Amino acid sequence: MPRFKLTIEYDGTRYSGWQIQKSSRTVQGEIHRTLTQALEPSAFELQGSGRTDAGVHALGQVAHLDLKTAPPPEVLRLKLNDGLPQDIHVRRVDPANPRFHARHHAVARSYLYQISRRRTAFGKKFVWWIKDPLDVPAMQAAARTFLGRHDFRSFTDDDPDEKSTIVQVDRCAVLEDGALLLFHVRGSHFLWKMVRRMVGALAGIGRGSISAEQLNTWLSTTSDGPAKYTAPPSGLFLERVYYDGEPFVDAIHSIVTIPHD
Amino acid sequence: MPRFKLTIEYDGTRYSGWQIQKSSRTVQGEIHRTLTQALEPSAFELQGSGRTDAGVHALGQVAHLDLKTAPPPEVLRLKLNDGLPQDIHVRRVDPANPRFHARHHAVARSYLYQISRRRTAFGKKFVWWIKDPLDVPAMQAAARTFLGRHDFRSFTDDDPDEKSTIVQVDRCAVLEDGALLLFHVRGSHFLWKMVRRMVGALAGIGRGSISAEQLNTWLSTTSDGPAKYTAPPSGLFLERVYYDGEPFVDAIHSIVTIPHD
Repeated sequence: MPRFKLTIEYDGTRYSGWQIQKSSRTVQGEIHRTLTQALEPSAFELQGSGRTDAGVHALGQVAHLDLKTAPPPEVLRLKLNDGLPQDIHVRRVDPANPRFHARHHAVARSYLYQISRRRTAFGKKFVWWIKDPLDVPAMQAAARTFLGRHDFRSFTDDDPDEKSTIVQVDRCAVLEDGALLLFHVRGSHFLWKMVRRMVGALAGIGRGSISAEQLNTWLSTTSDGPAKYTAPPSGLFLERVYYDGEPFVDAIHSIVTIPHD
Repeated sequence: MPRFKLTIEYDGTRYSGWQIQKSSRTVQGEIHRTLTQALEPSAFELQGSGRTDAGVHALGQVAHLDLKTAPPPEVLRLKLNDGLPQDIHVRRVDPANPRFHARHHAVARSYLYQISRRRTAFGKKFVWWIKDPLDVPAMQAAARTFLGRHDFRSFTDDDPDEKSTIVQVDRCAVLEDGALLLFHVRGSHFLWKMVRRMVGALAGIGRGSISAEQLNTWLSTTSDGPAKYTAPPSGLFLERVYYDGEPFVDAIHSIVTIPHD
């Protein structure tokens, strides 16, 4: 069966995450439904690079798709986008090697998290609004703590599917963009809730309610401390999934522009 | 009575425009309601710089507000924002001269219009999505046609409140920003539907369905030609209202970021 690589953008607000479920609206479920209606395929398989939680967005989720009889990639893309709801958009459909696997072959992933330091009429769905003043240099210094190879078991909930809690983080930065703070992280793989707990901990640093020493302790021992600092899903975007040979890109852009009041 | 100058941001999607109405939800109506509930004022008056149509947004609508007994400006701002719906945000409250008038004293206004050249999962409320290929240099050249002093009667519907259809346009440009085209216009005043018909005509130029000569004719005679090219309200933002002595700013930014697919 011909295999395709799909690159997908979605606003996760209305969805119970990526993964298909019997009784909930999910992104994978919507793509499944659209494929079935638009192409009436005799058989197909759709496999994402990984799950995203309810309310989490994606700029470049990747999935592979097998179709028994397949139209040209751009025709497939247009048919999908014609049938998909407005908050899911297929950015690319590329022919893929039949052995390409969206999850197993991913070598790195990156996430963007948007914190807004002011109320916004336009961006509420896409930010975490923090009213308290934030010490940005302290957050930037603390973000560097995450760089390298660490055991992130304190930053995840139990996940029976997860083999290893050791993660290699090779980019972790906090940038200022008007009233937004942009958190950008890239690593080998990410554990359940890990990015939201990293962001929550950095927000605690920024507010002065968590010390740099505390953060170091969480990274070097097992603690349930980070759990209560889990940042809300609204600010989180799966930015990109990297495959072998693709150069890393550090440049990021915000999804909404929020100038200072 | 102390007078305040309010600078207001709103997502106009859910509203029947700015102007207060008895039986429709409007932005001015929401601010009225919030003022009444939060401050229980014995008397107040709220006057905007001008109307915006149903579905049109604002980055910096200006209004003046008289309050018999008034809290400090920042307290007033916080009370308003606490009570307002999430899609209306008061960016500034400044003490104003009791003779300052938001509408009569405005010397210029600027608008931003966002055209997206691709489908977007995040920005549908804030763009006009045009599927057809657009000749951007032709649109940029045509935009310059609007510069200067012209009679825009062909670009407006009859409005009994309007005194003059002669408008001085001192900025009119089309910029590329990823998959977005940003139309930025500043002028002495704007007639009902004028910006949306300028944008619709430029889109016609971009698609090749209107010629530069046609546009010139519309600007020099009276024609109902532009009416059928009225662009949808979703892409339109009242960007700024200028008062005497304020320097003009040509730099603009998009509200959402839409990279090319």
